[in-house]
Amino acid sequence: MRTSHTAVACDRSSLIDRYRQIRALTLHLADPLSPEDMVVQAQPYASPTKWHLAHTTWFFETFVLSAHEQGFRAYDERFCVLFNSYYHTVGDQHPRPQRGALTRPGIGEVMAYRDTIDDRLTALMSACDDETIIAMAPLVELGLHHEQQHQELLLTDIKVVLHANPMRPCYREREIDSAQTESNALGWIDFEGGVVEVGHGGQGFAYDNEEPRHRRFLEPFKLADRLVTNGEYLEFIEDGGYDQPALWLDDGWTWLEGQRRHPQYWSRDDDLWREFTLDGERELNLNTPVCHLSFFEADAYARWAGCRLPTEGEWEHGAERQQIDGNFVESERLHPSAATGGGLRQMFGDVWEWTRSSHEPYPGYERPAGAIGEYNGKFMCGTFVLRGGSCATSASHVRRTYRNFFEPAAVWQFSGLRLATSSP
Amino acid sequence: MRTSHTAVACDRSSLIDRYRQIRALTLHLADPLSPEDMVVQAQPYASPTKWHLAHTTWFFETFVLSAHEQGFRAYDERFCVLFNSYYHTVGDQHPRPQRGALTRPGIGEVMAYRDTIDDRLTALMSACDDETIIAMAPLVELGLHHEQQHQELLLTDIKVVLHANPMRPCYREREIDSAQTESNALGWIDFEGGVVEVGHGGQGFAYDNEEPRHRRFLEPFKLADRLVTNGEYLEFIEDGGYDQPALWLDDGWTWLEGQRRHPQYWSRDDDLWREFTLDGERELNLNTPVCHLSFFEADAYARWAGCRLPTEGEWEHGAERQQIDGNFVESERLHPSAATGGGLRQMFGDVWEWTRSSHEPYPGYERPAGAIGEYNGKFMCGTFVLRGGSCATSASHVRRTYRNFFEPAAVWQFSGLRLATSSP
Amino acid sequence: MRTSHTAVACDRSSLIDRYRQIRALTLHLADPLSPEDMVVQAQPYASPTKWHLAHTTWFFETFVLSAHEQGFRAYDERFCVLFNSYYHTVGDQHPRPQRGALTRPGIGEVMAYRDTIDDRLTALMSACDDETIIAMAPLVELGLHHEQQHQELLLTDIKVVLHANPMRPCYREREIDSAQTESNALGWIDFEGGVVEVGHGGQGFAYDNEEPRHRRFLEPFKLADRLVTNGEYLEFIEDGGYDQPALWLDDGWTWLEGQRRHPQYWSRDDDLWREFTLDGERELNLNTPVCHLSFFEADAYARWAGCRLPTEGEWEHGAERQQIDGNFVESERLHPSAATGGGLRQMFGDVWEWTRSSHEPYPGYERPAGAIGEYNGKFMCGTFVLRGGSCATSASHVRRTYRNFFEPAAVWQFSGLRLATSSP
Amino acid sequence: MRTSHTAVACDRSSLIDRYRQIRALTLHLADPLSPEDMVVQAQPYASPTKWHLAHTTWFFETFVLSAHEQGFRAYDERFCVLFNSYYHTVGDQHPRPQRGALTRPGIGEVMAYRDTIDDRLTALMSACDDETIIAMAPLVELGLHHEQQHQELLLTDIKVVLHANPMRPCYREREIDSAQTESNALGWIDFEGGVVEVGHGGQGFAYDNEEPRHRRFLEPFKLADRLVTNGEYLEFIEDGGYDQPALWLDDGWTWLEGQRRHPQYWSRDDDLWREFTLDGERELNLNTPVCHLSFFEADAYARWAGCRLPTEGEWEHGAERQQIDGNFVESERLHPSAATGGGLRQMFGDVWEWTRSSHEPYPGYERPAGAIGEYNGKFMCGTFVLRGGSCATSASHVRRTYRNFFEPAAVWQFSGLRLATSSP
Repeated sequence: MRTSHTAVACDRSSLIDRYRQIRALTLHLADPLSPEDMVVQAQPYASPTKWHLAHTTWFFETFVLSAHEQGFRAYDERFCVLFNSYYHTVGDQHPRPQRGALTRPGIGEVMAYRDTIDDRLTALMSACDDETIIAMAPLVELGLHHEQQHQELLLTDIKVVLHANPMRPCYREREIDSAQTESNALGWIDFEGGVVEVGHGGQGFAYDNEEPRHRRFLEPFKLADRLVTNGEYLEFIEDGGYDQPALWLDDGWTWLEGQRRHPQYWSRDDDLWREFTLDGERELNLNTPVCHLSFFEADAYARWAGCRLPTEGEWEHGAERQQIDGNFVESERLHPSAATGGGLRQMFGDVWEWTRSSHEPYPGYERPAGAIGEYNGKFMCGTFVLRGGSCATSASHVRRTYRNFFEPAAVWQFSGLRLATSSP
Repeated sequence: MRTSHTAVACDRSSLIDRYRQIRALTLHLADPLSPEDMVVQAQPYASPTKWHLAHTTWFFETFVLSAHEQGFRAYDERFCVLFNSYYHTVGDQHPRPQRGALTRPGIGEVMAYRDTIDDRLTALMSACDDETIIAMAPLVELGLHHEQQHQELLLTDIKVVLHANPMRPCYREREIDSAQTESNALGWIDFEGGVVEVGHGGQGFAYDNEEPRHRRFLEPFKLADRLVTNGEYLEFIEDGGYDQPALWLDDGWTWLEGQRRHPQYWSRDDDLWREFTLDGERELNLNTPVCHLSFFEADAYARWAGCRLPTEGEWEHGAERQQIDGNFVESERLHPSAATGGGLRQMFGDVWEWTRSSHEPYPGYERPAGAIGEYNGKFMCGTFVLRGGSCATSASHVRRTYRNFFEPAAVWQFSGLRLATSSP
Repeated sequence: MRTSHTAVACDRSSLIDRYRQIRALTLHLADPLSPEDMVVQAQPYASPTKWHLAHTTWFFETFVLSAHEQGFRAYDERFCVLFNSYYHTVGDQHPRPQRGALTRPGIGEVMAYRDTIDDRLTALMSACDDETIIAMAPLVELGLHHEQQHQELLLTDIKVVLHANPMRPCYREREIDSAQTESNALGWIDFEGGVVEVGHGGQGFAYDNEEPRHRRFLEPFKLADRLVTNGEYLEFIEDGGYDQPALWLDDGWTWLEGQRRHPQYWSRDDDLWREFTLDGERELNLNTPVCHLSFFEADAYARWAGCRLPTEGEWEHGAERQQIDGNFVESERLHPSAATGGGLRQMFGDVWEWTRSSHEPYPGYERPAGAIGEYNGKFMCGTFVLRGGSCATSASHVRRTYRNFFEPAAVWQFSGLRLATSSP
Repeated sequence: MRTSHTAVACDRSSLIDRYRQIRALTLHLADPLSPEDMVVQAQPYASPTKWHLAHTTWFFETFVLSAHEQGFRAYDERFCVLFNSYYHTVGDQHPRPQRGALTRPGIGEVMAYRDTIDDRLTALMSACDDETIIAMAPLVELGLHHEQQHQELLLTDIKVVLHANPMRPCYREREIDSAQTESNALGWIDFEGGVVEVGHGGQGFAYDNEEPRHRRFLEPFKLADRLVTNGEYLEFIEDGGYDQPALWLDDGWTWLEGQRRHPQYWSRDDDLWREFTLDGERELNLNTPVCHLSFFEADAYARWAGCRLPTEGEWEHGAERQQIDGNFVESERLHPSAATGGGLRQMFGDVWEWTRSSHEPYPGYERPAGAIGEYNGKFMCGTFVLRGGSCATSASHVRRTYRNFFEPAAVWQFSGLRLATSSP
């Protein structure tokens, strides 16, 4: 989204290479799925795989190709409505809850659409003059980050589809790993606070909602040195955490009515807890991070534990010296892993970490002009910020300043938590 | 459903032949569809094609094979829940509105399921002793009529799916016929009434809700000699019929709120009315029967026309001497045709005719014991009776005594109307 | 509603007397209530007492006074919208679920409205010429029957209000009668059937939906000689009747989801069943008729008992020689009483009896012209017929041919059942 | 709510005087209302007057009297459920949307309840020992602030009731003032920002959510010197502001569907805009502050105006040197007034000002133990902060640090906005 103040790397061949690699990963992720898997929408919020494949293509066609390709003509006028997600500025949209009704265009046609747009776009990037590539590069960059977001959604959305089937099919054929890893005591890392800087300000790509970099005052605080585990969350359940209104936000208590009393994707057979993963159902691993929590559950757990969620400012300050490595989509595990080693760990990858912060504009933030202004700015209400990426995120996609956001009831992402407290 | 007092034709080879033919027609109807077309559920009431393919197979497996095959074992225990429609007596059911979430078993697996059950059942029918075939035959017969009902639903349900797609794809590739047939003045046929007999009582198959045959007293009445046409219905629209509460039942007036002001599948481009058919959208043919009406619309139209709907007793009495021929699924038109010739016409085929009669038990009716008792009896509330079959019904499926029934708001069947009046 | 072919008794003074008596009864029934009791609407279907007081007055003003009073001017133009129930022909209506928002006009103003209209109407009836009184009388008659219907609703609606209050206040101060009356074995009365006459055809007032009198053919049947009791219904509960889908209509089974598993107004404290009445909560009397059943419950009970509900034709034929006496509103018990004596009993009063018949037009029925046509005709869909009146009905209001009707889920009337069977 | 670290003024007689005055004001505000006005609930969120009268009394009984009165016995055990708002810690609650079903206890009984608790509490305050009064005082203080909040709700809730009546009755008899005041150009006040202090830290009462006082870093900003007026908001409407998705938050755009296209309580007759007030409907005054805006409308207006809403930190910093005076409930205008004079005006009174800040816990905030912890803490999700009090707020109730909060769709409070921008 970031289009200003940033020097864009204009090495054509590296841009084209990255374009090809990222577009190829999308297909790789869809590879285990049948045409039927790819068309169905099991919940209004979870889009079909085929829709993701088409929408990301539409994004490049609409925001890059149409602006820079000479003699541009739309691949199919009707796709402009079908595959527009929520850009009112661009035009009408097929209603989100009815994306699953689109049996046509078929998967073959969507693949042909992808191929054609890829060919036209790489041809353009190869052959255009320097001025054009400089103008195009930030939008291509944006499209690639956009594609990476949809790669993650493709995985979390297909998990919804597979779980809606009582046969509980797997995303892929793989042996289920039920080994219980070893436990790992929780430690705390101290931070002094004071006036700190938050937000993106330097080189490289960032979304508009990460800007501008600005100062904040933080009181002293502590962060837990790893994520909360399934085993720890199970103690909360067994202590009756779901039945004590004093632990919950009022909206959370209302949300609980008629809900399961455990994380999404957990189930219990007699005394044995099981967890549905992209590799199918398996015995609950007590030492891996708890995931698919709502904000309400994360908040209630933290209160029960005598702690609180970190604010996003605290999290970002805490991550300042952390390497961006961890269990990302590249590991192909597609499930969070237990913490190993010592020090501040798991800040990146494994699970998105709910923060206590609403998704609000940073001081000085302005919505970008045009359709791009609809990317993040209009969602600055009713959502909370998550940080750090998950096992379904690309390593090259996440940043210290990255602000993901979802409504507090959302559970279909790989979302968990890290504890925080105010010092001392 | 009819299992008592009826001599069942036990000619094995003819039964097996009919079994094969009817089962083959189902596949023939599904043939133009892609795997994606076959998995999607566009409305809670419209089931996926794949589900119909599996459910009809489950019906034979559950009600015939399991009772008569030696050493019977379920093909897949999980299918028993997935493909049970509404038989509480048999066990749990996958929720109807979530049939579209079943991307697995895939269409290939469902076809293999059909093949296996067909093989086992035809083998059993060929090889069993006489006593067994006599016991089985009524249930096979029931299963075949059940399959024919689902053939019709397969067509009306896929029409819902295709129409939900703004691209408005066709069910099959065929040239659109927009020829306007000639008009045909409406005439009236007189009936004297008196004590008449209604319901099924003789030889041959009938559903339980058609029995027992019983006496009724009919006052003199008239039936229109053909169905109401699109052109006639258009006059009702143009006369403001949708805006006059006095023409409507109270439930119908409530139903109208926020509804389209024309039949389902009609649309208007400037002054040109168009109609969506299984062959795609085409100019409205003014002389073919109006279809996809709700009971509310049929009732309001009749009142506007100074007439009323016939009762089911009147309809059945009126049909007594009619041949059961007309525009059925065998014509492969899959759309109603204009009336031709003279006399009482279109009593069978073209469109199901809404009657003024609630679907109530006949005097002396008793629900059959067991699961079969759930077939019709539990729906004797909140539904109205339709008579005569449609362009999507098999000719061999319908009878003079046949009672189809739907809730009054249902519009996705080929449902229209014939006018009636009480004689002066 | 009946306005044609009927000689209307034109004795002015007797008409004026009846007018005064019936209007006075409405006030008498409202007498125990506070202004707060009279304004509240606890459910969308249950109107406030104050609304009933005003609406019945509006009915006389709109349908009688405005047509016959010289120089007629509306009492208050705004009342015409506020107190119009559902007459689209007359004009707009204040939405039914928001009748409880009308804190103004206050009860004092509504009483003044009643007084004024009463004065104007009785003055007109006293002073007008013969032609006018002859023209007016049928409408005054209709208004009086209309008022009597609202007297019954006033009682059943205030019961809803009082029951919605966890303090469970009483409608009136009266000692609770918890005496258990004696039991009374159930007997059967045989009817031969044949061609019988049904509907209103003679002298005296009747609603339009009771006409025309017409012939029906009835197969032989039996009617139980008294109503089903609380004790009998309790056996159904204890036998698990609410948990057996095979006993229920499909709509009934759906309706049961998340419902209480006993009649409306029953509650259980440990093993003691209690029943809320207009005299407050008291121990369940096993020998009085069960009431506040939905059609679904009545139908399921009858099936459980190996019987069925009567059709309305059977009921009316069965009532042919019965006196119209019983436990009506005049007894001031306001609760059904146990059967006493022998023979066919309780056909009138105590509880409205659900029949198996949908509220459909009789052969030859035509909606009256104008607003009066909205009284019954538009409700001939989605409702079932109840017969015989209840402990909240006026004796002078009910008839053998009287067709009351409610949707099958309605429980707030005094509604119960009598068993029937088809004779062997 | 503030119970710790605060020296409480223990002058008994002044406490008792304030108790009497504040309790008397509640009755004074209810005085123009009839018993019917006081019982009705026109929306789930707007409680009946009678309920406010009882609930505030219950608050004193439950949190003060029960803890300190010797031999305490509940006035009526049943009131504890009926008049508990949302304190799960205390026990069950009568469901909020059904408060309007409580016709009993009648208004007379509720007044007697108030009198009795007032007598018992003032007797206790007069006669108890010093230790007890010191312990009680903070809770009495809390109860009085609680009562003041309900005085404001009493007014905004009865406005909902009166407006739900198409007769549009007035709260009180008073001549309507339609004089258009003079216009007043908008100016800007600059603030330098830096590390500032926010939150309550000193002497005197404050709610728990205002604490602890803490440091924040503010970038430079400007505040408009007065509130946005009706006339300015009308320009937004006339410019099509309600039809431009780019001006709205996504949740706001969704909220708009099927909504009015103007502020709550406005209406238009031909070209004349009118506004419903507690004195009835009157011509829209273009120079008084716009009110009854949702957060969504306030936010969209600010964007349209090229500005933004202030954060609550900016607002509080801006108010630091402002006198707490303005158009409060004491003026008895009960409607916002036009700005007069110069400099930073209308920071207090007139309308609550929506800020851009979610209602989140301050750094170091901890929920108080026990039921009091439910007062504010559990609502720190899904709500936005409003500042400054309104024409329905008591002058003695509001503070610079006061954080009011409502969900973003709420419009029934006197809520408006002041513009802000980031400098320069």
